[in-house]
Amino acid sequence: MSFELHYWPTIQGRGEFVRLALEAANADYVDVARGCEGEGQGMAAMMYFIESPDQVRPPFAPPFLIDGKVIVGQTAAILLYLGPRLGLVGKSETQRLWTHQLQLTIADVVAEAHDTHHPVGTGLYYEDQKKEAAKRAKEFRQARVPKYLAWFENVLQRNPRGATHLVGGRLSYADLSLFQLVDGLLYAFPKATQRALKKAPQVAALHTSVAQHKRLADYLGSERRIAFNEDGIFRHYPELDR
Amino acid sequence: MSFELHYWPTIQGRGEFVRLALEAANADYVDVARGCEGEGQGMAAMMYFIESPDQVRPPFAPPFLIDGKVIVGQTAAILLYLGPRLGLVGKSETQRLWTHQLQLTIADVVAEAHDTHHPVGTGLYYEDQKKEAAKRAKEFRQARVPKYLAWFENVLQRNPRGATHLVGGRLSYADLSLFQLVDGLLYAFPKATQRALKKAPQVAALHTSVAQHKRLADYLGSERRIAFNEDGIFRHYPELDR
Repeated sequence: MSFELHYWPTIQGRGEFVRLALEAANADYVDVARGCEGEGQGMAAMMYFIESPDQVRPPFAPPFLIDGKVIVGQTAAILLYLGPRLGLVGKSETQRLWTHQLQLTIADVVAEAHDTHHPVGTGLYYEDQKKEAAKRAKEFRQARVPKYLAWFENVLQRNPRGATHLVGGRLSYADLSLFQLVDGLLYAFPKATQRALKKAPQVAALHTSVAQHKRLADYLGSERRIAFNEDGIFRHYPELDR
Repeated sequence: MSFELHYWPTIQGRGEFVRLALEAANADYVDVARGCEGEGQGMAAMMYFIESPDQVRPPFAPPFLIDGKVIVGQTAAILLYLGPRLGLVGKSETQRLWTHQLQLTIADVVAEAHDTHHPVGTGLYYEDQKKEAAKRAKEFRQARVPKYLAWFENVLQRNPRGATHLVGGRLSYADLSLFQLVDGLLYAFPKATQRALKKAPQVAALHTSVAQHKRLADYLGSERRIAFNEDGIFRHYPELDR
């Protein structure tokens, strides 16, 4: 049976971290909200799980994954569940925990990236908080991105199995997510991110190598990969990048 | 051997979610950064793990937990690790995943609570962003807190084993964390939180019942429980509460 991924149909957003894992593992999955309402898919199918009072374990928000009777929300929890099933995490508890810890730290950066364009209210438009966004983005570019990338650089450089992967000697979902984080940062803040990557060469190399992974490269070149846009988490507003 | 909890010594912060689990389970633990430097504890002992180039798996930030050779950072990952060891999570994968999903959603609220007083920069003082904080706090009080509490209320009301606990029929670390979230919100935004709790009676009841748990009550009345203060995540600035 196929995995069902439920996520907003027009943005990469947090769902993309799950899509990359499914695609890299060549998993059989349906991107439900992007499907046809006539086939029981589309937005209505997704919102049912969030809004129906019959849901004993309702997700708070997309993305969520359905696998038979299992329903799981929160990007990092979805990857915790999928990792072993897709062969995208090591076998030991220690490796799994460390991979998850990396993922949670990536999630923290993603939330901060979102807040650069929505510092004072997710319910307001960017246009209504441009002044505040300029302040928040400045700190994000100058302090937060360099700090986070330096940490991932350390993790890669200190990996006893080599700097090609974050954990052990094989591709994990954390590698895919770090690729996506860097890809998003390069889209949103190209100048600042290029600068920061010069001091994090192994992170830059991982970004390049993951993009060359056969199945990932196919996916990234396909129509299944939604383009970055200004409705997503990583938004390119030139005035926020220096 | 004792668990070692490493966290900032003068605030509850994110470390408190781990402390509550350790205390509720009567676990043997050392709160390292609050200990004596002369005994190899204190801040220096904590910072060593973050700053030493010898750390193969350096935590990005406190809190982190050390258990023998295992070192794990990120609050939710620490609880994922401790849950089964402290008897604070169900036995099935489904229960563990759901408990973790709840924890990750609590973590999201905690991050948003922090951003009410630091909307444009963690590196700036609150006094330097009071105007922006007023905007962010308004949305948090009026939209976010009610939405999150309504979701937890649904989760409690739909629990097939009864509304006393979030997952199954026994205390889990998610219950402890929801207690702490509500406790923090009541400290920071007493007016708005009391209002929101009127529409989430099961959440309010859980907050009361967890505080009466024998070992928790002992802890909450002890000197080990640091008081809420304006250096932590939940800060009471009367101008942000309406």
